[in-house]
Amino acid sequence: MKGVLYVVSGPSGVGKTSIIELTLKKVKNIVFSVSCTTRPKRPGEIDGKDYFFVSEPSFMKMVENGEFLEWAVVHSYYYGTLKKFVEEQLENGKNVLLDIDVQGAMTVMKKAGDAVYIFIAPPSFEELKQRLVKRGTEDKTNLERRLEDAKRELSFIPQFEYLIVNENLQESVDQLCSIIVAEQVRVKRALDRLGMHKFFENGGGYVE
Amino acid sequence: MKGVLYVVSGPSGVGKTSIIELTLKKVKNIVFSVSCTTRPKRPGEIDGKDYFFVSEPSFMKMVENGEFLEWAVVHSYYYGTLKKFVEEQLENGKNVLLDIDVQGAMTVMKKAGDAVYIFIAPPSFEELKQRLVKRGTEDKTNLERRLEDAKRELSFIPQFEYLIVNENLQESVDQLCSIIVAEQVRVKRALDRLGMHKFFENGGGYVE
Repeated sequence: MKGVLYVVSGPSGVGKTSIIELTLKKVKNIVFSVSCTTRPKRPGEIDGKDYFFVSEPSFMKMVENGEFLEWAVVHSYYYGTLKKFVEEQLENGKNVLLDIDVQGAMTVMKKAGDAVYIFIAPPSFEELKQRLVKRGTEDKTNLERRLEDAKRELSFIPQFEYLIVNENLQESVDQLCSIIVAEQVRVKRALDRLGMHKFFENGGGYVE
Repeated sequence: MKGVLYVVSGPSGVGKTSIIELTLKKVKNIVFSVSCTTRPKRPGEIDGKDYFFVSEPSFMKMVENGEFLEWAVVHSYYYGTLKKFVEEQLENGKNVLLDIDVQGAMTVMKKAGDAVYIFIAPPSFEELKQRLVKRGTEDKTNLERRLEDAKRELSFIPQFEYLIVNENLQESVDQLCSIIVAEQVRVKRALDRLGMHKFFENGGGYVE
């Protein structure tokens, strides 16, 4: 049976990366989709683990070849999700987690499939601004622009299924883990996993 | 903001009581709705904690007075959920967990309100039979009848939202806890909790 796609989105600086990292350690049977990007590597990031860091010409070639499930320009750089990786994992019954921007999430939503949409929001704009400043990865112009983008991105919240307000890291991790586990035991998915007909066999067992 | 009603249902002997007991220890802000019943108290049960054990005349009077959110005859005895308790808790923002039979769950479903429906199923009929025998609370006739009832109850699974197949107690507890936490962070409920307008105030904070 196919895996489930978990789409985690939200503004830059909200803490998605930390929440996702801790979640992946706790939840079984889920893999992280490493995105491609043309933005420069930040200190501490690892090529092939945090992102595949590629040149702009390479990225555009991949776009031409239809290699992305979704791609977008975010804060002047390109980001994309590799279609082949995601499809293979899902076909093999593995759940996949995407960490993508809000535009990208909207693209994936149009392409449907069995997916769960989770928005991670900051407790306030002030908090978001402080986190971006603390992270030290933006200059003043970029900072202002990210805050403006954040306000716009928040307006998409109603299109998502879950909203995690990241006030406390452990609580946010607990919420994301809970969403992943709970979605696995939705009736439709549980019945698919078990083979629905088995429930109605007289006296039969129905767990594989 | 109103609390959420969690309706946990499934056949006798499936392990609902144990799962719920452990879940209530782990999850905050949720109270258990103690049902009324006319069945005799089993060894180890406490009046007012496991059930309110009442006489049949008392129960019928409560039915007449409209005191039950739902009530049903299950295996020759009456069971009912106290409306006043549930409504007060929900009004005060407390989440409430009901442990009721499948008929009762169907009644609650008709009355709607914000509720989450969770079915707990045995891994197989053989397993269910063994658990009922081990529990030692049924004679042979009752045993056969409970198994027949179980088969019929399983046919209601598609009307529920979540299905927990109770093979492993800890895993089932983890799944029920996850469902409760995940449902709290559904976008609609999260926005209600935060006050939706706050997301769209310019530069404003939006967590109470």
